[in-house]
Amino acid sequence: MSGNSFGTAFRITTWGESHGAALGVVIDGCPAGLVLSAAEIQRELNRRKPGVSDVTTARKEADEVQLLSGIFEGKTLGTPISLLVWNKDVNSSTYESFKHIPRPGQADYTYQLKYGRRDHRGGGRASGRETLARVAAGAIAKKILAQHSVEILGHVVEIAGIRAREVSAAELRDHAERTTVRCADPEAAKRMEAAIKAAKEEGESVGGIVEVRALGVPPGLGDPVFDKLDAELAKALMSIGAVKGVELGAGFEAARLRGSEMNDELFVHAGRIMTRTNTAGGVLGGISTGAPLICRIAVKPTPSIAKPQRSVNMTTMQDVEIQITGRHDPCICPRIVPVAEAMVALVLVNFLLRNPPRI
Amino acid sequence: MSGNSFGTAFRITTWGESHGAALGVVIDGCPAGLVLSAAEIQRELNRRKPGVSDVTTARKEADEVQLLSGIFEGKTLGTPISLLVWNKDVNSSTYESFKHIPRPGQADYTYQLKYGRRDHRGGGRASGRETLARVAAGAIAKKILAQHSVEILGHVVEIAGIRAREVSAAELRDHAERTTVRCADPEAAKRMEAAIKAAKEEGESVGGIVEVRALGVPPGLGDPVFDKLDAELAKALMSIGAVKGVELGAGFEAARLRGSEMNDELFVHAGRIMTRTNTAGGVLGGISTGAPLICRIAVKPTPSIAKPQRSVNMTTMQDVEIQITGRHDPCICPRIVPVAEAMVALVLVNFLLRNPPRI
Amino acid sequence: MSGNSFGTAFRITTWGESHGAALGVVIDGCPAGLVLSAAEIQRELNRRKPGVSDVTTARKEADEVQLLSGIFEGKTLGTPISLLVWNKDVNSSTYESFKHIPRPGQADYTYQLKYGRRDHRGGGRASGRETLARVAAGAIAKKILAQHSVEILGHVVEIAGIRAREVSAAELRDHAERTTVRCADPEAAKRMEAAIKAAKEEGESVGGIVEVRALGVPPGLGDPVFDKLDAELAKALMSIGAVKGVELGAGFEAARLRGSEMNDELFVHAGRIMTRTNTAGGVLGGISTGAPLICRIAVKPTPSIAKPQRSVNMTTMQDVEIQITGRHDPCICPRIVPVAEAMVALVLVNFLLRNPPRI
Amino acid sequence: MSGNSFGTAFRITTWGESHGAALGVVIDGCPAGLVLSAAEIQRELNRRKPGVSDVTTARKEADEVQLLSGIFEGKTLGTPISLLVWNKDVNSSTYESFKHIPRPGQADYTYQLKYGRRDHRGGGRASGRETLARVAAGAIAKKILAQHSVEILGHVVEIAGIRAREVSAAELRDHAERTTVRCADPEAAKRMEAAIKAAKEEGESVGGIVEVRALGVPPGLGDPVFDKLDAELAKALMSIGAVKGVELGAGFEAARLRGSEMNDELFVHAGRIMTRTNTAGGVLGGISTGAPLICRIAVKPTPSIAKPQRSVNMTTMQDVEIQITGRHDPCICPRIVPVAEAMVALVLVNFLLRNPPRI
Repeated sequence: MSGNSFGTAFRITTWGESHGAALGVVIDGCPAGLVLSAAEIQRELNRRKPGVSDVTTARKEADEVQLLSGIFEGKTLGTPISLLVWNKDVNSSTYESFKHIPRPGQADYTYQLKYGRRDHRGGGRASGRETLARVAAGAIAKKILAQHSVEILGHVVEIAGIRAREVSAAELRDHAERTTVRCADPEAAKRMEAAIKAAKEEGESVGGIVEVRALGVPPGLGDPVFDKLDAELAKALMSIGAVKGVELGAGFEAARLRGSEMNDELFVHAGRIMTRTNTAGGVLGGISTGAPLICRIAVKPTPSIAKPQRSVNMTTMQDVEIQITGRHDPCICPRIVPVAEAMVALVLVNFLLRNPPRI
Repeated sequence: MSGNSFGTAFRITTWGESHGAALGVVIDGCPAGLVLSAAEIQRELNRRKPGVSDVTTARKEADEVQLLSGIFEGKTLGTPISLLVWNKDVNSSTYESFKHIPRPGQADYTYQLKYGRRDHRGGGRASGRETLARVAAGAIAKKILAQHSVEILGHVVEIAGIRAREVSAAELRDHAERTTVRCADPEAAKRMEAAIKAAKEEGESVGGIVEVRALGVPPGLGDPVFDKLDAELAKALMSIGAVKGVELGAGFEAARLRGSEMNDELFVHAGRIMTRTNTAGGVLGGISTGAPLICRIAVKPTPSIAKPQRSVNMTTMQDVEIQITGRHDPCICPRIVPVAEAMVALVLVNFLLRNPPRI
Repeated sequence: MSGNSFGTAFRITTWGESHGAALGVVIDGCPAGLVLSAAEIQRELNRRKPGVSDVTTARKEADEVQLLSGIFEGKTLGTPISLLVWNKDVNSSTYESFKHIPRPGQADYTYQLKYGRRDHRGGGRASGRETLARVAAGAIAKKILAQHSVEILGHVVEIAGIRAREVSAAELRDHAERTTVRCADPEAAKRMEAAIKAAKEEGESVGGIVEVRALGVPPGLGDPVFDKLDAELAKALMSIGAVKGVELGAGFEAARLRGSEMNDELFVHAGRIMTRTNTAGGVLGGISTGAPLICRIAVKPTPSIAKPQRSVNMTTMQDVEIQITGRHDPCICPRIVPVAEAMVALVLVNFLLRNPPRI
Repeated sequence: MSGNSFGTAFRITTWGESHGAALGVVIDGCPAGLVLSAAEIQRELNRRKPGVSDVTTARKEADEVQLLSGIFEGKTLGTPISLLVWNKDVNSSTYESFKHIPRPGQADYTYQLKYGRRDHRGGGRASGRETLARVAAGAIAKKILAQHSVEILGHVVEIAGIRAREVSAAELRDHAERTTVRCADPEAAKRMEAAIKAAKEEGESVGGIVEVRALGVPPGLGDPVFDKLDAELAKALMSIGAVKGVELGAGFEAARLRGSEMNDELFVHAGRIMTRTNTAGGVLGGISTGAPLICRIAVKPTPSIAKPQRSVNMTTMQDVEIQITGRHDPCICPRIVPVAEAMVALVLVNFLLRNPPRI
């Protein structure tokens, strides 16, 4: 009820502040008997890790995961899996000047209002660092999904107004992880990277659009009328910091289509019912159709920019001008890809595990 | 867990099929002592009611609400409020031909897959008629919010590619309900209406964008990191049939802004901290800022169109061509406005009532 | 969150006041495809119905159930099942004198404190009449359980200090429903009946102990460490008005046993692992063992007695003496039997339906 | 949904196996601004700690708590509090012989059935050691309750059939913690201690009854009709391993009382409404009355006894005789006292924090 848990059948509870002792997650509901090692989780964490390229923050964190419970002789027990990552490269000094001054576009101001106090160091609980717990839990969700032949693929489709061309699942699988910006269109990727660097040099940041596709999703997932598959995906994705919009299939473009363009007609192919188009994005009436699930999120430019900004000292109640130093991502899109994948995986694994059998 | 409940502190459970005996909702958690009459709920239901203009379906339903519990001597008891609307103008004959043939763009196919059976008459549980329960519960939520000076205003901002100009809250309040399409820009409203009629004559349907604003929202609502205010709004709005996208504040436009354009700078005005801009849309870090909450949804064109479409007979497994007759909205946007308002109200009243006191 | 729902996978939400328009329940999560008729639910409701013998209240209610949704062509749809019973034989006049005077042992005083107001007629929401919704939902739960070979058997084992002898499941099945007091020991049943009548003549009421057994429960139900099978049963049974204690297996007697007496030793019989004794009552570590589930509840004497009692006028804040007239059960035990069975069935069906598959 | 969380507003999620790396708990929903130190939690953990007297197990664990998140500058942040205790004095060798042989009266058999595997070392997740996480979370709950003038007092009232005399709250406060067995009647305490030692020498174990009282509970807590205060207490207490029964106020004795004996009459005293008796145990209609809350649990004798017992080898499916060595409590009652207090505190703090304001 207090916001730090997600899911029902596969329920995760995350905890930790950016500059506290550690961050972690407890996963309740992972089925027993799953082969699981720290290395598998580490692999996903490394995709989210800071300090790996010159378009991400310079904070250096090994983000080494430690498994504390729920696994015995290399397999899950069905009991809660607790894991954590210790914070190491913590430099809180640059944050001291913001103890009483909320940074524009950040949660500083609202946390202070809601809780009456906050850990101002590195954004505290509102830091993007919180998402490592999502990625760790998502790694386990992905493994369960993979055993049911569900594959989750994320990539950047737009940064700073530069749009990648449409790519097939095969292209996505082959190219996205090879580029610094996680864009499967290598040519666009280069221009995106340049745009990020240019923005950084100007003390600016840029936003973009990230897409996640899920292939092999079994039909029938989703619980109308409120816990629809698309509704849960919308919540899951919008809960990632910096996300300002979520869409499925044709998304906002659907507002401009006509009924005959939007409707995916059905036909029989090799004894199965299929649709030629997928404007629905894999969901009808809140239930998966069996076609690829396609969702996109709008990511705002990182609020931490070097340019001077106006804010307020909450103690003295005076206007001030601030300049944010420290280590920040000029564009968060590439690092949001594994986080968005994790959230999609968490939604799917929940529906998969709680799907009631028919009588 | 099975999808027909929404909310925690103010929890609603809806039930009913389009052509069944009745539809209704049970509201658990409405505080005791609220003055409440059926007439107040009826007023909101009438805004959603079919058959009121030539751009909506011709189905005639009085949709008269009946209160069954939870109210005594004109005030709520704090016990569950049960209310229902009997189905009357039911004509199931036009649906018989679709018993085995899923209509494209509808939930027919996925319901059949998920449940192994469905009430095919009028879309059954997946019918838009389900939303009357949301509107009825939303009417109570709005009343509670109004007592806390929160106002919910919905309107159509785009239909068939025709965009309304930006309007102030005052304009919205004055004009939106006066036009058939619920658009606060009277000039655009006329063109939208014409576009809907033109589409209808061609056997087509059109989509659009609906915006909901909430004014007077107290700061501090929302429970990071998963149950963020914007995340809950995204779920609530995406759970409405026909919605393919949700955005807050700058929304998808944020992907093209630079950090300095996106960040709402803070300043002190008359002893209070404010922002001049509101690209955030009233939420930072998942917590309300106190600025107006602004969200928009992409509404797809109604799938029920008169044009011939290709589908499949699920029993014979043969391709077929179908033609949908019956009474349908050529554009659902105007009638979605009160539904979207209801969902926003339900999200807000939940956070308002469960907001834990500080120590 | 507000107390009127029970369960997760098979979630019921009940509503209604004793002298309001109606009482009912919405069941969310009943699997699709279950053959279900109103008559089957009616059969269970009739077991709880008032006015059927001279040891129960004289209120005459047909308690005729009306099904409003979730069923189509005689089978469940997987959508919410809404059902209600209209209140008919309502005589609120005898309650007027208690509008400001809480009756001892009743919820009058606490409802007034909690909600600031209450429907004082017939106990309002706190009336035992609320349990008809539990019994109706329980009838559906029992049907699902029966399809999994689980049988629920309830009976009275003690009234007014008169204890029935131990009975086998066969005796229980054959005799309990044939006696007015629902006791499977016919000889004890007669003495219980006499004791109830004697108490009634003195303007008194008596309590007793009700036992529910569940046969055929599959092993593995229950979710440690908090949602243990016995923990959920304890909650479910203690939530019935008038229940002051719950025990499983040896129950309170376990406090006086030695380890070697309490432990059920295991042995192999015909290729299966079994225990000779069942002091555990069918649960170990919060998980069903496969042995019969045995639970008992302590039922207090009905608080509504004819004898004069002292209370307080909450408006004038003066001590008063009251005398309760009206129609009341001198012993609620026989009518609690179907309610307790229903609660056990609801707990079991939830675990059955949400039991996650192994990897 | 998977059993390792408890509560709504103040929600705890526990994790860890007896011989794993560590055990811990995440608390979500602790209000911001609470002064909190590890020492305060440690104090309660020390009350539950093993190895402190000759009537408890000889396992030596410092059980030193480590706080990982949610606290900043000595006060809670309103974000999740994560804490853990590392396992140190682990000796798994004595458990090797039970890898395939379930110990009678233990959860070995049911865990194996439910999950298909288990951590057999020290009982794994089913170990009583799990309760340290409850006690740690309960320490925080107690602190919040103390700020609302609620006091929780637990004590042993019966062991091995030896019953303590009735004690006042003052006696309980003064004496219970001074005796090895946590019984506030020093004379009975001596006899209990002797009975435990005698049982231990015979290779046996004994059970008993533990009572928890909560003083100063504000009236109005509890959410009828399912989430009644007594129902939640029943679940909370029954979820503790070894508990076979729960009762409130008169409890099972209520089954033998007459209405006039059971009903607590009301009267006006110094301008307030009170009752002279408290057979209700502080709850009417599932809502607290303001009188002391009184609940008792039946604790079975510890299943781990030195006497030879018959069991089964699950791999060979052969009957075997076993003898349990290792370090075990001959009577768990004294160490259950802080656990039961913690569960009562957790129930109360949840109702306190989620209690909705009246309109």
